[in-house]
Amino acid sequence: MLSNRTDRKFPRVIIIGGGFGGIEVAKNLKDKEVEVLLLDRNNYHTFQPLLYQVATGTLAADSIAFPLRKMFKSQKNFHFRIAEVESIDTDNKIVQTDVGDFDYDYLVVATGATTNFFGNQQIAKYALPMKSVKEALDIRSYVLQNLEEAVLKPAAEDRKPHLNFVIVGGGPTGVELSGAIAEIRNNILVKDYPELSMDEMNVYLVEGQDRVLAPLSTQAQTKAKLYLEELGVKVLLQVSVTGYDGNAITFADGRSIETKTVIWGAGVAGQFPAGFDKEIIQRGNRIQTDTQCRVTGLDAVYAIGDVSAHMSEELPRGLPGVAPVASQQGAYVAEHIVKILNKQTPAPFKYFDKGSMATVGRNKAVVDMGKIRFQGFFAWFVWMFVHLVSIFGFRNKLVTFTNWAVKYFTTNGGIRLIIHKYNRPAPETKEKESTTV
Amino acid sequence: MLSNRTDRKFPRVIIIGGGFGGIEVAKNLKDKEVEVLLLDRNNYHTFQPLLYQVATGTLAADSIAFPLRKMFKSQKNFHFRIAEVESIDTDNKIVQTDVGDFDYDYLVVATGATTNFFGNQQIAKYALPMKSVKEALDIRSYVLQNLEEAVLKPAAEDRKPHLNFVIVGGGPTGVELSGAIAEIRNNILVKDYPELSMDEMNVYLVEGQDRVLAPLSTQAQTKAKLYLEELGVKVLLQVSVTGYDGNAITFADGRSIETKTVIWGAGVAGQFPAGFDKEIIQRGNRIQTDTQCRVTGLDAVYAIGDVSAHMSEELPRGLPGVAPVASQQGAYVAEHIVKILNKQTPAPFKYFDKGSMATVGRNKAVVDMGKIRFQGFFAWFVWMFVHLVSIFGFRNKLVTFTNWAVKYFTTNGGIRLIIHKYNRPAPETKEKESTTV
Repeated sequence: MLSNRTDRKFPRVIIIGGGFGGIEVAKNLKDKEVEVLLLDRNNYHTFQPLLYQVATGTLAADSIAFPLRKMFKSQKNFHFRIAEVESIDTDNKIVQTDVGDFDYDYLVVATGATTNFFGNQQIAKYALPMKSVKEALDIRSYVLQNLEEAVLKPAAEDRKPHLNFVIVGGGPTGVELSGAIAEIRNNILVKDYPELSMDEMNVYLVEGQDRVLAPLSTQAQTKAKLYLEELGVKVLLQVSVTGYDGNAITFADGRSIETKTVIWGAGVAGQFPAGFDKEIIQRGNRIQTDTQCRVTGLDAVYAIGDVSAHMSEELPRGLPGVAPVASQQGAYVAEHIVKILNKQTPAPFKYFDKGSMATVGRNKAVVDMGKIRFQGFFAWFVWMFVHLVSIFGFRNKLVTFTNWAVKYFTTNGGIRLIIHKYNRPAPETKEKESTTV
Repeated sequence: MLSNRTDRKFPRVIIIGGGFGGIEVAKNLKDKEVEVLLLDRNNYHTFQPLLYQVATGTLAADSIAFPLRKMFKSQKNFHFRIAEVESIDTDNKIVQTDVGDFDYDYLVVATGATTNFFGNQQIAKYALPMKSVKEALDIRSYVLQNLEEAVLKPAAEDRKPHLNFVIVGGGPTGVELSGAIAEIRNNILVKDYPELSMDEMNVYLVEGQDRVLAPLSTQAQTKAKLYLEELGVKVLLQVSVTGYDGNAITFADGRSIETKTVIWGAGVAGQFPAGFDKEIIQRGNRIQTDTQCRVTGLDAVYAIGDVSAHMSEELPRGLPGVAPVASQQGAYVAEHIVKILNKQTPAPFKYFDKGSMATVGRNKAVVDMGKIRFQGFFAWFVWMFVHLVSIFGFRNKLVTFTNWAVKYFTTNGGIRLIIHKYNRPAPETKEKESTTV
């Protein structure tokens, strides 16, 4: 099915990872004289910016995930395999996976980032991450499971940990997720759970710095915090988490919150297969590259997106871990490979920053586009438009739009099914045994 | 939260199961002087007639499942608990569950049916059933997993078991499912898997009787078989399955088919909690009732829908296991309880048969409405209309319609994500070890 190295007509480019970076490499190699092989552990691309809407039940998983084979069905030089890449042998130019070995002429590592618990095993065990569709669905189930648990407890004291929701990390993920969970309380809890009181359910957003949305403008930060508080989110700034045993989260200032649900959006770290020199691994477990996205010390191996630390004199801290960086690097690397094959000299990669945005809730968003900054209804509208045009596939656009429209006009459109129950490990500390019906 | 038996204002009706029967009981008790408590192991109602569209990726799970709390959010006397009912103590009128005991004044057992493997442990282990949303999603994942496996095998011989799909049972489930899987091959396989040939993928429908859709008219049966064959389904009639070891399915006539995928739609059996007298359990593991849907020998306990064997002189074999029977019995039982409370005398239950229909594929369906029988495009249109108006919820109708419309105009609208991988037990017989990439 795939060609052998000896009788191959065109050089093979292997791309590991079908995220924003990987798919741009593949797309921009269409009709070029290369064989493209994309490897991913899933058969779909995940539109990560809308994962929180899957977690909070606004969108079905199918609306933000796009089958990779379908995406490239008209690209003749494209091949795909579901594979877990175990290691890379850069000397022999071979990628070793759970379904066999693949040899390459050019390799693009676009494996992205995973949740960073900063070495805290206890938090890693009990807190919920949100980096994949499966994890987003787990959050959705688990929030509902806790509401159902709460209904079974006659004493308010016993309901408390099930009705406190703590989101750690004041970046876009934390802001959007806490806003959406607060909206669930305001719109859905009151209707679906008449036996519970709205005041009993608390949503906390915990951030170590003195502001949310650190990379955005002060104006956006202030408004985002205001919007969150309007929705009823308790924003705790300059608070650092020290532990979470599954029953209560503790903070450095001695305070704690009884809760069954801690969602961790406080950091990411690069993830990549074995085979890279430890010397070139930078802060945040990212692979160091030169200004042409090539892995330091290796000739035909590129690293792009969240897994890469793009080092240059102008950018000593690298580039931000956002989708546009990955996409632009992906397109750049495809062009780079073609130039090398044509014996041309490629120019260094330049990042074009189109701006940042985050949404907090219905009619509430913040947008920074260079010096142009706006918030509120129009920002929310721009946010929706940008995300809708960015989602792949006509069906996904249509279904997403339908869901958003229904949600907007009814405030009751959410998906609240527990299809795959989330089984969290049992807490280390003993729970009070008080369940009665 | 729930009242105690001693200080309860109104008698409590417990309904076990939120299927077609259970929800009709609850709905028809709105504003009546009873307390309604619905118990289900899931927090949603499943629209079973469209499960096969979830299995084949036309619809998202969320389109055919409806949260029970949402369904009854404006019904004041309605209560709901997610609970696995373990047993019933009819002497003390108590339902025992995994979340505690609940006492009742009236009990409605609407627990439905589960897949019947007729005692064959091997088939039960390896074949896939399709009675729940989770099982439908498993089928979706597993079909795609097999296509991905096939792509990894350079020898056609090794691809074969991954590309043979066998559906057992020529009832509506088997007919609709085999038609839809054949459509996947015809429309999607050719586009998404250019490395595979369409001829390699075979869809078999296996039925023990000499016709498909046994309860329908001869006209409908003939047309349904023709439609299936037009789509390329190999319909095997008068063939009974003797075994399936995970690698090959064997038939009584000595033939066998190498396959990794057997979907079992050949029979159902009632499922209910412990606590019923063995004497009253009828064929198909169903609970015997009188003509008023009351469980034989018990006064305040009803059984309705697939779990019940409604015995009368006119209907010695009971009623068919279809949604309209359950719905009509549900409405009847609600009225029955109200009449008893008002000291009125209820009439026996009468089933009103509105007809039967099944769809085979695009523009292909069969409809029997008494003497009126039609097939083809109009039947398909009627089928769509009936199912669309029957699905609960405005959002579900809209999203389902959008998906159907996109599918109709593009023949490429399917959802083909493997989100939760299906792990089938390893076959007992050894597989040839030939995987290379």
